[in-house]
Amino acid sequence: MLQGALQSGAAHRKSVFEAFARRLPDGRRYGIVAGTGRLLEGIANFRFGEPELDYLRRTKVVNDQTLEYLAGYSFSGDIWGYPEGEAYFPNSPVLIVESTFAEACILETYLLSVLNHDCAIASAASRMITAAGNRPCIEMGSRRTHEEAAAAAARAAVIAGFDSTSNLEAGLRYGLKTVGTAAHSFTLLHDTEREAFEAQISAFGPETSLLVDTYDVEKAVRTAVDLAGDKLGAVRLDSGDLVAQAQWVRQLLDELGNDHTKIVVTSDLDEFAIAALQSAPVDSYGVGTSLVTGSGAPTASMVYKLVSRTDDAGDFISVAKAAKNKASKGGRKYALRRLNERGTATQEIVGVGHHPEDDGNDRPLLQQFVKNGELLPGWTGPEGVQRARRRHAETMRELPAVVNRLQRGEAAIPTIYEED
Amino acid sequence: MLQGALQSGAAHRKSVFEAFARRLPDGRRYGIVAGTGRLLEGIANFRFGEPELDYLRRTKVVNDQTLEYLAGYSFSGDIWGYPEGEAYFPNSPVLIVESTFAEACILETYLLSVLNHDCAIASAASRMITAAGNRPCIEMGSRRTHEEAAAAAARAAVIAGFDSTSNLEAGLRYGLKTVGTAAHSFTLLHDTEREAFEAQISAFGPETSLLVDTYDVEKAVRTAVDLAGDKLGAVRLDSGDLVAQAQWVRQLLDELGNDHTKIVVTSDLDEFAIAALQSAPVDSYGVGTSLVTGSGAPTASMVYKLVSRTDDAGDFISVAKAAKNKASKGGRKYALRRLNERGTATQEIVGVGHHPEDDGNDRPLLQQFVKNGELLPGWTGPEGVQRARRRHAETMRELPAVVNRLQRGEAAIPTIYEED
Repeated sequence: MLQGALQSGAAHRKSVFEAFARRLPDGRRYGIVAGTGRLLEGIANFRFGEPELDYLRRTKVVNDQTLEYLAGYSFSGDIWGYPEGEAYFPNSPVLIVESTFAEACILETYLLSVLNHDCAIASAASRMITAAGNRPCIEMGSRRTHEEAAAAAARAAVIAGFDSTSNLEAGLRYGLKTVGTAAHSFTLLHDTEREAFEAQISAFGPETSLLVDTYDVEKAVRTAVDLAGDKLGAVRLDSGDLVAQAQWVRQLLDELGNDHTKIVVTSDLDEFAIAALQSAPVDSYGVGTSLVTGSGAPTASMVYKLVSRTDDAGDFISVAKAAKNKASKGGRKYALRRLNERGTATQEIVGVGHHPEDDGNDRPLLQQFVKNGELLPGWTGPEGVQRARRRHAETMRELPAVVNRLQRGEAAIPTIYEED
Repeated sequence: MLQGALQSGAAHRKSVFEAFARRLPDGRRYGIVAGTGRLLEGIANFRFGEPELDYLRRTKVVNDQTLEYLAGYSFSGDIWGYPEGEAYFPNSPVLIVESTFAEACILETYLLSVLNHDCAIASAASRMITAAGNRPCIEMGSRRTHEEAAAAAARAAVIAGFDSTSNLEAGLRYGLKTVGTAAHSFTLLHDTEREAFEAQISAFGPETSLLVDTYDVEKAVRTAVDLAGDKLGAVRLDSGDLVAQAQWVRQLLDELGNDHTKIVVTSDLDEFAIAALQSAPVDSYGVGTSLVTGSGAPTASMVYKLVSRTDDAGDFISVAKAAKNKASKGGRKYALRRLNERGTATQEIVGVGHHPEDDGNDRPLLQQFVKNGELLPGWTGPEGVQRARRRHAETMRELPAVVNRLQRGEAAIPTIYEED
């Protein structure tokens, strides 16, 4: 595309691209924006190095004119969008890139990869957090997704309210709180369960969490209390009927005088399993597979469309594909969340051109992230994650109560196109 | 776990870990192994660098003894497994790691991430290839998955028979054939569709593929033929009823004298949509979302279990978790594919100890990849990908015809545990 556009000269036309999802995953009420901070860091460093240029030259994928353009590439335009942690709905303009066509077009695949992955994880995580109520959720899914996706998933989960992650690399990169656990192999490695527990307590103190379902759960709980005493931090259950098991393990711990010892449950939990455990005496949830695969919706279906570009006179023209089942709205958008007098969101307002006059109940959604190629402060790094986490919590308080329902249904608020 | 095991001294026990899937994704007949080559390259370079050690020190995640162990880490054991491209079934021992507990335990998350992701993609891709018959499939899903997962997905797809990928980074890393396409934005960028087609033909010659559904498909096909003549390489359809559209576009192209111009279809294809297009006059399939998300099964559910370890006397003992719904078989496994007299696979034979005497119809499945920490040649890099692609084609010819069915069902062959 770049080579064709350089050939015609249209590559240098000013363009507006928009990333949005035409629909939410089947039955979901809302989505959560994530990935933008990671994306902005990536765009700031987006260059074609010698290995890439050499490959493109050697394989004749592009011509010399295009190679020269790529060798000098760095993004010099503007980027606006919904802040991370914000809710989105069908056709919300989640990210807007304003630059030459060439500059914006080069970013397409990378930009969509980041948003599609991270929004999918954050959207699933947010529902789990709602189902978990006040009980902390721990991200433990690294092994069930691509090794780099794992770190991004941990970041997205924490934005959507997860307490911590077992991914140490994500802890290093994004300043996330990390927690660890022992697997069954640790118990099996030792000659007896007692020796395994002794080793763990000796290394981490009695406040550690002991995995009690390798052999016999009751025997393991008794051994754990025998060794760690009433300081025992937690026991972890990773198999069986978690509701019933949590009940009698809680009772047993209390009988043994360990009413401060917590119960952590894991084992293919998703938002529905978490909801089913609401009345069980469980203290925290470790969530793996379902979280990192978006709980049935592993990609957010975001697309990146040219919505406006200049003509030969330099004037902007709205453009959109006409084909029937994939029609898009052309034009540079504004986006507002309309609130009622109680501060509850009622509509997502999207329009082309200038904001209507604010009547006090419309919250503007688009923020500027990049200006003339310069990253604006506060959106990236550990600071960006914490800010996004706060944004998520605030947004969730503003959305109507229907977002707490796990049943399938329509988007929680409708997206309304306002004419300019 | 490492710190606890260093504390008790058990970290240095010789151990055998096994990666396997307890079940195939719901209704699938077989899985395809992928990721091993990528994993072996990663393990060869698996070290803890100063940033990681500093982070672990600073955050007090581990103690000094553990830090010291990590600083000196490099894998020095043996790795065996199913070669990439091979089919697997429930409980097939896809990868076997033999080393000290400490060395094998450190690899757990990374190893499972790679296998769970890449096997999921290759398994989905293999079904698409079966559905596509002789028509080539092109991997075009990069934008719908994490940016690094995208390159791995392209690699896994090519192993399972995809012809090429649109991911240039994957082309660079793994020597894959790459292809490109133009998006609707390229057409919208230009003042008319004709100008866009002219630019593309001028840059790539008339043999290029033109996207014809931005405005009106019939008009676009006529314009394309008008500009490129009978050398026009292909037209791409990306929306609407692809079966009906392919029919009349084929007729139109033939009427215009372009019976050599091909029809490429894209638009949320999966194995079922590809099967539905079998009788339509389509020449190749571009597959995106469904491929990179494993077509409903984004992770392969592989687990990594300690199956054997030495005791204080240095003798190996088989170990396995006893808890009800997650029981595993202990012991270092062998694995064979039993073939009937026509060379068709009938059983997956897994046992502990030594192979039974070969009766000529049992094909051993485990190959050695790493010996005393040294990577054996032929499994990694572009060579490994091509070898895996051949392995996949050979294995598919050997499996019973039921693997060609897309309907849900049981594993194509049963996994039988043989007693030693």
